[in-house]
Amino acid sequence: MTQIQNYIQGEWVSGSGSELELHNAINGELIGSASSEGLDYASIMDHARKVGGPALRKMTFQERGRMLKALALHLTSIKEKFYILSAATGATRVDSWIDIEGGIGNLFANASLRKQFPDLPYYVDGVAAPLSKHGTFIGHHIMVPKQGVAIHINAFNFPIWGMLEKIAVNLMAGVPAVVKPSEFTSYLTELMVREIVASKILPEGSLQLITGLGRGILDHVTNQDVVTFTGSAFTGKKLKALPQIIEESVPFNLEADSLNAAILGEDAVPGTPEFDIFIKEVQREITVKTGQKCTAVRRIMIPEKLVEDVQIELGKRLAKTVIGDPAVDGVRMGALISKLQVERVRESVEQLAKSQDIVYGDLDKFEVTGADKSKGAFFSPILFRNNDPFNKTDVHEVEAFGPVSTIMPYKDLNEARAYQNGQRIIGHFHYHCR
Amino acid sequence: MTQIQNYIQGEWVSGSGSELELHNAINGELIGSASSEGLDYASIMDHARKVGGPALRKMTFQERGRMLKALALHLTSIKEKFYILSAATGATRVDSWIDIEGGIGNLFANASLRKQFPDLPYYVDGVAAPLSKHGTFIGHHIMVPKQGVAIHINAFNFPIWGMLEKIAVNLMAGVPAVVKPSEFTSYLTELMVREIVASKILPEGSLQLITGLGRGILDHVTNQDVVTFTGSAFTGKKLKALPQIIEESVPFNLEADSLNAAILGEDAVPGTPEFDIFIKEVQREITVKTGQKCTAVRRIMIPEKLVEDVQIELGKRLAKTVIGDPAVDGVRMGALISKLQVERVRESVEQLAKSQDIVYGDLDKFEVTGADKSKGAFFSPILFRNNDPFNKTDVHEVEAFGPVSTIMPYKDLNEARAYQNGQRIIGHFHYHCR
Repeated sequence: MTQIQNYIQGEWVSGSGSELELHNAINGELIGSASSEGLDYASIMDHARKVGGPALRKMTFQERGRMLKALALHLTSIKEKFYILSAATGATRVDSWIDIEGGIGNLFANASLRKQFPDLPYYVDGVAAPLSKHGTFIGHHIMVPKQGVAIHINAFNFPIWGMLEKIAVNLMAGVPAVVKPSEFTSYLTELMVREIVASKILPEGSLQLITGLGRGILDHVTNQDVVTFTGSAFTGKKLKALPQIIEESVPFNLEADSLNAAILGEDAVPGTPEFDIFIKEVQREITVKTGQKCTAVRRIMIPEKLVEDVQIELGKRLAKTVIGDPAVDGVRMGALISKLQVERVRESVEQLAKSQDIVYGDLDKFEVTGADKSKGAFFSPILFRNNDPFNKTDVHEVEAFGPVSTIMPYKDLNEARAYQNGQRIIGHFHYHCR
Repeated sequence: MTQIQNYIQGEWVSGSGSELELHNAINGELIGSASSEGLDYASIMDHARKVGGPALRKMTFQERGRMLKALALHLTSIKEKFYILSAATGATRVDSWIDIEGGIGNLFANASLRKQFPDLPYYVDGVAAPLSKHGTFIGHHIMVPKQGVAIHINAFNFPIWGMLEKIAVNLMAGVPAVVKPSEFTSYLTELMVREIVASKILPEGSLQLITGLGRGILDHVTNQDVVTFTGSAFTGKKLKALPQIIEESVPFNLEADSLNAAILGEDAVPGTPEFDIFIKEVQREITVKTGQKCTAVRRIMIPEKLVEDVQIELGKRLAKTVIGDPAVDGVRMGALISKLQVERVRESVEQLAKSQDIVYGDLDKFEVTGADKSKGAFFSPILFRNNDPFNKTDVHEVEAFGPVSTIMPYKDLNEARAYQNGQRIIGHFHYHCR
């Protein structure tokens, strides 16, 4: 069986055994198996600290920026490779574009930031602060790279963008990275890292990849390291509270569950361009990447008197969303990432259905074009309606991470804000990730 | 017995019983007793959220800034009151100046920042980001105050500065505060809050004060609140890992133990002005506030060939430091904050003395001027020498929070940096607090 490999200490290495098998989301075919069992994380961190870090720290901001730009240009020149494999994640061309070209765009954007920095390996912050008369004692901040490692733990929905948007930053700052993409889509990240390594554009040690479960990846962090986590709040909070994270005061950036809202203005009535834009945009937010975006609109807040109009128009547009194999002409929405995700999203929908009504879509009855519905990880768009969102509050707590959203009425803008302003019942918001 | 009181929900309230008694650091006289036992923190938070928050949020940045300036001017006009009580903490006039006028200076500095903000209650961040063609869909960040509470937990060494530097920020941002100074010096903070409340310059609910142990103060935090902690790393890390802090993703700013270093350059030999400045500055850093400053120089790194010179000159200057009641002419160093601190610092010195030698000062034999040595919390300056700081590493881990510092040699600047660069053996650095 094909092994998805780890790139550590300058070599491509298979983990022991198989931690999980990965399947094509459209046709269910086996892609390979992943494992990071048995990896020695102390040595991996050491490699980053002793090989990658010193090489990056010697470079100036200009050199690091040009390195990122060269990488972005190289990856753009071979981007079709990534589109081909990305299709296995259930993605349409547009879905893949967000992940692949959005990710490469991040490299370009960070590379451009070099213009705000000097041609030096460090950054002199502001002006000197006089601390005594006659200038005998002054203070001056000089910002230098941390001498540790950036460990990035990413979510399954952006196997490429998730890595590139994060490493662009640490590489610009002169710090090496260890990336752990979600094990569920690490085959796509693996392909990109193979191309990055083969290009020799980054100095050895500046990027290592863990494609399996990554158990133990945070065992050896110190206060010189940083950890970023994108994924479920449950796992993120567990990691953030690990003794070594607290003890060593390791900066820990947690991007987790979100329940983003779109609010229709009271004057954006049917017939206005704003109403049409709103319907189009919300439908797009529900279906793009089969709803697997942490910025997807999960709560649609509508002036009471317009709820019927929105429900009808949104239903019409969702009905036109052809589900199936994106390789087939006319298909607009692909599959979830895996059969496991189908089960998870179904559970969340069933939970939500206890307190609100499905007004569009069906968990079982829907058409799939160009693919075998039983083999792929397909899911129907589901539109809920919740007429009592102050009392039926699951909608503010439970995120179904698929093409699922809820319409709810509001009386006036204060009420809409009350849903949205982060009060206890609302859960957490964030707008950092796509 | 005089009760140090809490200011909560618009009233001055005594806690139940007495959690601890507070004594004058110079003569041991009883000042009063403190307690926050029995306070209802849910109601305290509610008062801040429902009374203080809305009042501050209505104000513009200009109004908030002018409020801070008015407060700073008022406190300056009555500053001698604070100097009188501050003497009870064992402080010299200079020590008190840092706390009192340093603190008020922070109010002025933050008030001036209003010039960078509009005359509005919110701040529009940057320019609009176009998200679609023809400007039909744009994004714009507007920064509004959090709708929660800033809880500030402070250290005993800066009862005034510790509060003012923190509330200046949250008040400018339109957020109310609950302040818990260290229970060991809360009598001084209480005096200042009495003056602040009586002045009616701040809207009611924007500042509440907990002068006792504050047990339960973090029980009701949500993601709208922020917590700042200054004090021991041990306590700080425990609070930072509380389930409600993790679960609600509450921003938690931890300023804890530090082991700051001063490095003498290799060319700053005896006879140069730099050498003299270094000796003077290090002596000052050891003795100001009887060494109870988290930025005090704890590690003095000296080129190998200059260690003897520094040891001799520093010893001479320390010998001139008259210890005693700062009210008496010629006294340059007062007392530690309490007898308890004498015990704690003594323990740390004894720990350090296992791996390095005391070259100046004695735990028991030292002169006290104008006060009864047995009644006050006096402590001699202690200078250690550690000739093997790579192997005798307690000096990089143990902070004696008094007039205690250690000379150590370095071979070249790389070695000095190795001590200082935050490697595992070095412990934590920070430069935020005074």
